[in-house]
Amino acid sequence: MSNQDFMAGADALGRLDALFRPQSVAIVGASSDPRKIGGRPLDYMLRHGYPGEVYPINPKADRVQDVRAYPELGAVDGEIDLAIIAVPSPAVEQAVTACADKGVKAAVLFSSGFAEVGDDGQQQQDKLLGIARESGLRLLGPNCLGLFSIKERLGASFSTSLATMWPPAGDTAIVAQSGAFGSHVYVMARDRGLGLSYWCATGNEADVDVADCIAFCARDPSTRIILSYMEGCKDGDKLRAALELARQAGKPVVIMKVGSSDVGAEAAQSHTAALAGADRVYDAVFRQHGVYRAESINDMLDVAYACGAGRFPTGRNLAAVTISGGAGVLMADRAAKVGLDMPEMPAPAQRELKELISFSSPRNPVDVTAQALNDRSLLRRFVDVTLEQDCYDAVIVFLAMVGLFRPMMDEFHQMLDEMRRDAPDRLIVLSMIVEEEDRKRAEEKGFPVFEEPSNAVDAVAALARFADAFARPAMVGAEAAPIELDTRPNEYQALRLLAGAGVGAVDARLATTADEAVAAAADLGGPVAMKICSADILHKSDIGGVRLGVSGADDVRAAFNQIMGAARSASPNALIDGVILQPMAARGVETIIGVQRDPVFGPVVMFGLGGVLVEVLEDVTFRVAPFDVAEARRMIDEIKGRKILDGVRGAPPADIDALAETLSRLSAVAAASADTIDSIDINPFVLGAEGEGGLALDAVILPRLSG
Amino acid sequence: MSNQDFMAGADALGRLDALFRPQSVAIVGASSDPRKIGGRPLDYMLRHGYPGEVYPINPKADRVQDVRAYPELGAVDGEIDLAIIAVPSPAVEQAVTACADKGVKAAVLFSSGFAEVGDDGQQQQDKLLGIARESGLRLLGPNCLGLFSIKERLGASFSTSLATMWPPAGDTAIVAQSGAFGSHVYVMARDRGLGLSYWCATGNEADVDVADCIAFCARDPSTRIILSYMEGCKDGDKLRAALELARQAGKPVVIMKVGSSDVGAEAAQSHTAALAGADRVYDAVFRQHGVYRAESINDMLDVAYACGAGRFPTGRNLAAVTISGGAGVLMADRAAKVGLDMPEMPAPAQRELKELISFSSPRNPVDVTAQALNDRSLLRRFVDVTLEQDCYDAVIVFLAMVGLFRPMMDEFHQMLDEMRRDAPDRLIVLSMIVEEEDRKRAEEKGFPVFEEPSNAVDAVAALARFADAFARPAMVGAEAAPIELDTRPNEYQALRLLAGAGVGAVDARLATTADEAVAAAADLGGPVAMKICSADILHKSDIGGVRLGVSGADDVRAAFNQIMGAARSASPNALIDGVILQPMAARGVETIIGVQRDPVFGPVVMFGLGGVLVEVLEDVTFRVAPFDVAEARRMIDEIKGRKILDGVRGAPPADIDALAETLSRLSAVAAASADTIDSIDINPFVLGAEGEGGLALDAVILPRLSG
Repeated sequence: MSNQDFMAGADALGRLDALFRPQSVAIVGASSDPRKIGGRPLDYMLRHGYPGEVYPINPKADRVQDVRAYPELGAVDGEIDLAIIAVPSPAVEQAVTACADKGVKAAVLFSSGFAEVGDDGQQQQDKLLGIARESGLRLLGPNCLGLFSIKERLGASFSTSLATMWPPAGDTAIVAQSGAFGSHVYVMARDRGLGLSYWCATGNEADVDVADCIAFCARDPSTRIILSYMEGCKDGDKLRAALELARQAGKPVVIMKVGSSDVGAEAAQSHTAALAGADRVYDAVFRQHGVYRAESINDMLDVAYACGAGRFPTGRNLAAVTISGGAGVLMADRAAKVGLDMPEMPAPAQRELKELISFSSPRNPVDVTAQALNDRSLLRRFVDVTLEQDCYDAVIVFLAMVGLFRPMMDEFHQMLDEMRRDAPDRLIVLSMIVEEEDRKRAEEKGFPVFEEPSNAVDAVAALARFADAFARPAMVGAEAAPIELDTRPNEYQALRLLAGAGVGAVDARLATTADEAVAAAADLGGPVAMKICSADILHKSDIGGVRLGVSGADDVRAAFNQIMGAARSASPNALIDGVILQPMAARGVETIIGVQRDPVFGPVVMFGLGGVLVEVLEDVTFRVAPFDVAEARRMIDEIKGRKILDGVRGAPPADIDALAETLSRLSAVAAASADTIDSIDINPFVLGAEGEGGLALDAVILPRLSG
Repeated sequence: MSNQDFMAGADALGRLDALFRPQSVAIVGASSDPRKIGGRPLDYMLRHGYPGEVYPINPKADRVQDVRAYPELGAVDGEIDLAIIAVPSPAVEQAVTACADKGVKAAVLFSSGFAEVGDDGQQQQDKLLGIARESGLRLLGPNCLGLFSIKERLGASFSTSLATMWPPAGDTAIVAQSGAFGSHVYVMARDRGLGLSYWCATGNEADVDVADCIAFCARDPSTRIILSYMEGCKDGDKLRAALELARQAGKPVVIMKVGSSDVGAEAAQSHTAALAGADRVYDAVFRQHGVYRAESINDMLDVAYACGAGRFPTGRNLAAVTISGGAGVLMADRAAKVGLDMPEMPAPAQRELKELISFSSPRNPVDVTAQALNDRSLLRRFVDVTLEQDCYDAVIVFLAMVGLFRPMMDEFHQMLDEMRRDAPDRLIVLSMIVEEEDRKRAEEKGFPVFEEPSNAVDAVAALARFADAFARPAMVGAEAAPIELDTRPNEYQALRLLAGAGVGAVDARLATTADEAVAAAADLGGPVAMKICSADILHKSDIGGVRLGVSGADDVRAAFNQIMGAARSASPNALIDGVILQPMAARGVETIIGVQRDPVFGPVVMFGLGGVLVEVLEDVTFRVAPFDVAEARRMIDEIKGRKILDGVRGAPPADIDALAETLSRLSAVAAASADTIDSIDINPFVLGAEGEGGLALDAVILPRLSG
């Protein structure tokens, strides 16, 4: 796998104009009753003014809902971009065949009774896909609630959420794997006044999946923000390509991926496998591509709303100006929690503010105090001085319930205009209670407004993360030659293979006789560790297969014989390759580095600190291979025990450069060896002090069974 | 300090009827202009119909806002329960004196210019307090926004939030230290339709503080839920007594305490002191008294809203019934995160449900699927079967946006009635989008409704925590005799003192001569650890003051001389008490146990696992002393590394019983010795396997400097 393999099909990805922006729509199974599933799309399109051609298909009626109907698709003269198929499952195959014959470009399949009901349904679904693929027809569904394109006024859905009102148009798209959940999200978004471009439920995803829709939105000029609800995907490369298209287009993607608690259920798996639960791999993918993973619907909608301001702070320095000291402290608490810095206001500015109001707190959070309400020019000056400081990437202004006092509102909007003029590109978030009309005016000027001060801080943190992701260059993983394997390497071979691939490994020697052991020990110099080398013996210490700190020819010889004897008597049938000798471990921080294969995303690199942290807190982090050194650094920075690498209890800072290099290099090897290697487990990888590098002391490489 | 000392003044606490429920109110500085600070309270009381006597005090007018006015308090004939003082700070002393002379029972001081402006103001404030104390007058403020009593229609506040509408009456009280922030919370609560009993801002807290107000609410029959915003308090015992009154009355208390990020700023303190940052002690107090600590205003209001249902689940087993599989997975994720269990539906019930809908998921989360909407009797049956299971303490029903379809609403309310009839006391939370009218009807039947499924799960978790706290007996800490100290004990003495107080300590011996050392080692048997005993030498190892695994008379003698020599040459001026000998450490889990004095709450016990966890993750937990064994167990269960005590990597489970006993006993000693001991630091306390107990291997006790 080359570094950019996941982008291989990206050029064709998301070319779904016929689905989302059709010029003409046929409805197969169109009903005269607008309350029926087959009647709703036509009703919505008529009611909300879809401007393209509409062809109801119904063999039993000349007109459906007062529109000229056709007995079959073939009877339609013009071209058909999109067919909505609303017939019972037994009739779907015929409908899809008719679409293919007619040259329809895309079809939405409402009908259920396919993959979701079992193997027979899956076979039926595969058949539909085969027919569609042959003619170039794209399928949404089956078993899906369809889509609506808001500006295009296309209601290709039977969701009753469209019955009452047409969604407000905007630049946020919602793509959901679940129609019921997606509708719930849509209504919550609508009730908040969030404007939408597209809404789509992908159902069984026979063909078009969440990734296709995200890619479409990434290319679509009317969509700036992409929200998605997903439970998983089958094609990891496609999802990554879609996310990368969005990132490169500077469009924030917010995904609510459920299933994180399943990790616990996978505990039956082996130790590392349990840690590498698939949900954590999605988490890694989202981090790699700058996706914001939302924890709740409100979280998702809050972030989408904040993105609407179109300003992404390029740093993490926040200033908060408040008329209530309490709100300032609350925001400082929250900033610390979400990783924003609140650097102190520069001294000259503090002096100036203190002169304006002697009992104000000008440090940051900046508390103007309620005096701001008595003399609003003071509030303006406090905000101005804060905006003048170059050190703040984002500013939050907390105004409590000022917004409820109509007489102040003219002054308020004037202040906003002046702030925008003075700092056109700065992210400025308001936290206040305000009437809807004034809130909308503030939003139009690019100020998001949150009643809750904590939400304002969370929004700044989310936007800063997007800015960071958007600024990264196109993903380039390190390149490496693959590791070729004939058979399962023993520990000695595994260490040699890693060393050959550029991963630091201890200078281990394999001795098959006592004489060889003595010679190896002499060559290594100093006391050595000796351990049995056998792929068949897992718990070496338990059977007396390990000796530490052995020195001197006699002791080495005795240890060799002892270890071999112990191994033979404990495991008479084990294939024994000899005894490994290596220098006693260098001092440093013990870490664990591994490679696992994820069924969706392929080789995944895991990193964690050794010892109890990984055992008890599952303090490990993942990235899909390959990735570069910068990504490796972000990965390292994610672990809870990160401080240990800076040196605690008098220990020197660890060689983080070498660690990042190693992770990136291993990721390249893992990606290049995707066909030959199933897993790599380096435990421990001992990281020395800065400049000393790191060494794999023990390693297991498992070849790919099918490889 | 005896165990219940913090409850000593509880009988008198919160007797604030004259403040919150006055029969008569005087307004000193009453203004004819209802927009002015001195005019607003009268305006509010007139407009909203305060039924008691109102006496505007104004020397320049016969009538104020059309009410008969009096030139001074003394001119009023009747009794005055409450005086609102709205005069500039220089006139406040005279007004308070007049209140005292007149026998007024309580006063609200709006005026600013006291403690908040500096030392002079503090002196002025102290003077007011002195006058008030002498006559039994209670003071709210100064520098406060006052209070409003909703049912009593008393607007003793100049908050403009009352200008537009009177708050809806209800059973939730809001007590805030900050008027601006408290008003913000109030408006957010009002906009959600949360009914209030009282709202109060305490300002400078010269007399009445947040604790007094919480205690009042705990006794007040019309208040069932208490919300508070606080930045800190001066009287820890009073706060604890108030919280305990509320807990014993079964009233949930939700506190938003800000200032958690200050912990970082205190890093300049010594190691343990930094860990024992005061905010974490508040956290401990809240846990001890069953307070829910809210992270945001929305969090606080969500929990208050859920409490309104008046049903607190007595266990942590949750069932979720949904019409969308996605919502079920989301809720399962969330449940795992907030510590709720979702046990599997019993097999017979699963079979029954599977028979009803073959493609449903009956395990739990129970997914009825969208089929529930086509045949609502199926939904009812799924809910019924779930409610019939004894294993679920709470049930969430997710109905997406069903609530928007008026035709379904009759059926919906009928279903709610039947659910309530079948499970009158069960906590059942709905997650759905619904019109306000239908939501209110559901709420009246005791069903909280959340649009966001995650919020529904969070609410269940919060309510279960309250139930757990309400069920605990009145707090009784362990009792112990105080440790008497003349001077600072050396390490040997510290270990002996702890052993004498019932805390397991290693069998240490102090030798002042080599002969004594040899005899002690022989008596102990086996290899010993030897270390210099001197209060003046902190880093014993660094100066060669420690030897491990010494055995045999000659080696012990040599080690003794070596250690004494090293110490004398490294620290010629140190007072050296001799050499401590103790058996080599028993195997077990290293923990850290400490006692620190908190300036607000007195002696606080800290517990954490030793090693890197405490260093890097600050994985420690606190409780205010004294506390019982059950509280110690809750404390132990809080640490992130808790699993280690169950035994990892083949280690046996640690003796948690002994650990809990030790913490409780030490807490009793700490409480009893509050006058003599400043801090205790046991590091490490090595905890053996179950039944083996634990041993302090090293201890430092610092006497109280003033003691």
